[in-house]
Amino acid sequence: MKTMRVGVIGAWGHLGSVLEQIEALPEVEISGLARVFPQDRHDQLQQAYPKALHAKVHGTYQEMLESNRPDIAVIGTRLDQISVAANAAAQAGCHLICEKPLAIEVPALAQLWTTVQARSVACISMLANGDRPAIRAAAQMVRSGELGAVAVVNVRKSYRWGERPEWFGRRELYGGTIPWIGIHALDMLWEVTGKEISMMAGWQGNMGHPELSGCQDHAALLLELAGGGVGTITVDFLRPAGAPTHGDDWIRVVGSRGQIEAYLDRGPSGTCHAILENAVGRDVKLPEAGKVFERFIRAIESGKAGELRAETARTFRTTYLSLLGRQAAEQNHICRVDDRYSLQWAQKFSGQKYG
Amino acid sequence: MKTMRVGVIGAWGHLGSVLEQIEALPEVEISGLARVFPQDRHDQLQQAYPKALHAKVHGTYQEMLESNRPDIAVIGTRLDQISVAANAAAQAGCHLICEKPLAIEVPALAQLWTTVQARSVACISMLANGDRPAIRAAAQMVRSGELGAVAVVNVRKSYRWGERPEWFGRRELYGGTIPWIGIHALDMLWEVTGKEISMMAGWQGNMGHPELSGCQDHAALLLELAGGGVGTITVDFLRPAGAPTHGDDWIRVVGSRGQIEAYLDRGPSGTCHAILENAVGRDVKLPEAGKVFERFIRAIESGKAGELRAETARTFRTTYLSLLGRQAAEQNHICRVDDRYSLQWAQKFSGQKYG
Repeated sequence: MKTMRVGVIGAWGHLGSVLEQIEALPEVEISGLARVFPQDRHDQLQQAYPKALHAKVHGTYQEMLESNRPDIAVIGTRLDQISVAANAAAQAGCHLICEKPLAIEVPALAQLWTTVQARSVACISMLANGDRPAIRAAAQMVRSGELGAVAVVNVRKSYRWGERPEWFGRRELYGGTIPWIGIHALDMLWEVTGKEISMMAGWQGNMGHPELSGCQDHAALLLELAGGGVGTITVDFLRPAGAPTHGDDWIRVVGSRGQIEAYLDRGPSGTCHAILENAVGRDVKLPEAGKVFERFIRAIESGKAGELRAETARTFRTTYLSLLGRQAAEQNHICRVDDRYSLQWAQKFSGQKYG
Repeated sequence: MKTMRVGVIGAWGHLGSVLEQIEALPEVEISGLARVFPQDRHDQLQQAYPKALHAKVHGTYQEMLESNRPDIAVIGTRLDQISVAANAAAQAGCHLICEKPLAIEVPALAQLWTTVQARSVACISMLANGDRPAIRAAAQMVRSGELGAVAVVNVRKSYRWGERPEWFGRRELYGGTIPWIGIHALDMLWEVTGKEISMMAGWQGNMGHPELSGCQDHAALLLELAGGGVGTITVDFLRPAGAPTHGDDWIRVVGSRGQIEAYLDRGPSGTCHAILENAVGRDVKLPEAGKVFERFIRAIESGKAGELRAETARTFRTTYLSLLGRQAAEQNHICRVDDRYSLQWAQKFSGQKYG
């Protein structure tokens, strides 16, 4: 097995969550670190992750892609630049692990999809809530059918405001809180239930942060699930500074034969409580955390990138849903969700069967 | 102070919750019990509430209204008949405590409003969640401004299915689960925040009860709050039989300076947990439960029915909102909420200042 070369593009966001998993992979090296903006600095990543310590630092990612030729690009930078850098890296034949959302506009997402398909690369984004023990436990119960038919899904993402960069206030650079945070909730809904969404309504606003009024500090989506059932998503950046954890993420699923509530940030590694038909409630035993980036890289390493096609399409679809949710909220109307980036649509697009 | 005469109309629903509070009022008597349907039986009420034991039983409420002449009518019957009986009782000059919703159609609600105004009677419905200690604690904190500006409100009503009458399956008799249960959530939102709603979207369905497929066993509403902020409401009849309580009602309010979560059915008398800006979370001390029906009757007793005008208008508005929510869900569109039954609208309608 040849050594996999990973090139890092940018110096912002959740790059650390990927590099952490790469540290455990002996056959993988960080071959390069590229700036997107002249002021990008990789010092902190290099201090935290030994594999990044001796990586070559490149002034631009174009230069890194040409001279360093990584197999995989890990991209984290200002959100308007994700799809631009990802497109360049895909053109260069790199598989992609990108900060979410993959794109902040629908046409940029479509452009990236076309390149990813043309170059036959795999592409996921940094949506790792599916790895959390509480989500995995909930998913196991819901997807196995133990709760019966899914009737209601409630998802919450609640974060502290903390420090937010100035560009979060500009839609053309940030995209919006629904694509930035709501996308996690859409991902959680999918991970736990495997349900598609057929319609969306939404509203959003800024209530407590006039200094960055363009950045929504709260948003909510109403979802119609395909085949029946409803969902709600609530996102806020208003969790008080004194709260015990940065986030308070939660998903509740009510089925025809039981219900489940999973808290991602309560207890030592989350909690998952189930009440099944005619049984008393019980805490569900949590599995180990997953490692989505490690799994992705290992699949590529072992020549099975083709098996990542479904995951690639799903990442595009989740991104697409987040952009439709923003559209619903911005335009005050109910968005009907077409089948773009669904498995069926993607198979038709590529003419390939998805595993 | 003269003895107040209460006439009970019908034999279904939450009549007991009113009669229970009447038992504690020495100046109030149950003067009559009237059937709406020939098969109505008042035995259980009479066994449970001594004041009802010697009340005259009337074959029809028309007859009771004419011969018994109650001051207050307490109405609980099949939901399509609430507004019909209430209208007759208001015509007869009775103040009204009605099962919710006051009406299951907008025109019937308007008709009742006109009669209530013409006869200068007060009218509330059996929406008593505002009495619950957890709601009172939450309301105190939110309405005093401790949480800052309200950005997000999430409300949940979750009940066991239990036994539901056959007519719950017929829209023209039942009205729908949003007017029947969602109305409680709308009431809770109002009680806690005092926020008006400017737009609504909604979806509903039946996932687990094919035997009564016309009765929605789940529904969700998305709310835009007037002046900013968003809300979600989720209602389900899918709480498993083995769950520790019949219901699991909950409200969460996120403000610009803190957040609060109140559970109505957890702990001995509910729970209310607050996290304020820069402070650690704490359980809020719960006040005593309120007694809305007792308060209503005492106001009438002491000649202050005029002071119930605002409450009367609010009851109509909450009912109206529940019917608009159903409309949004049935017609798949976003309902803009006009100001009907708001305080301003009601004052203009009646030409009277509301206290």
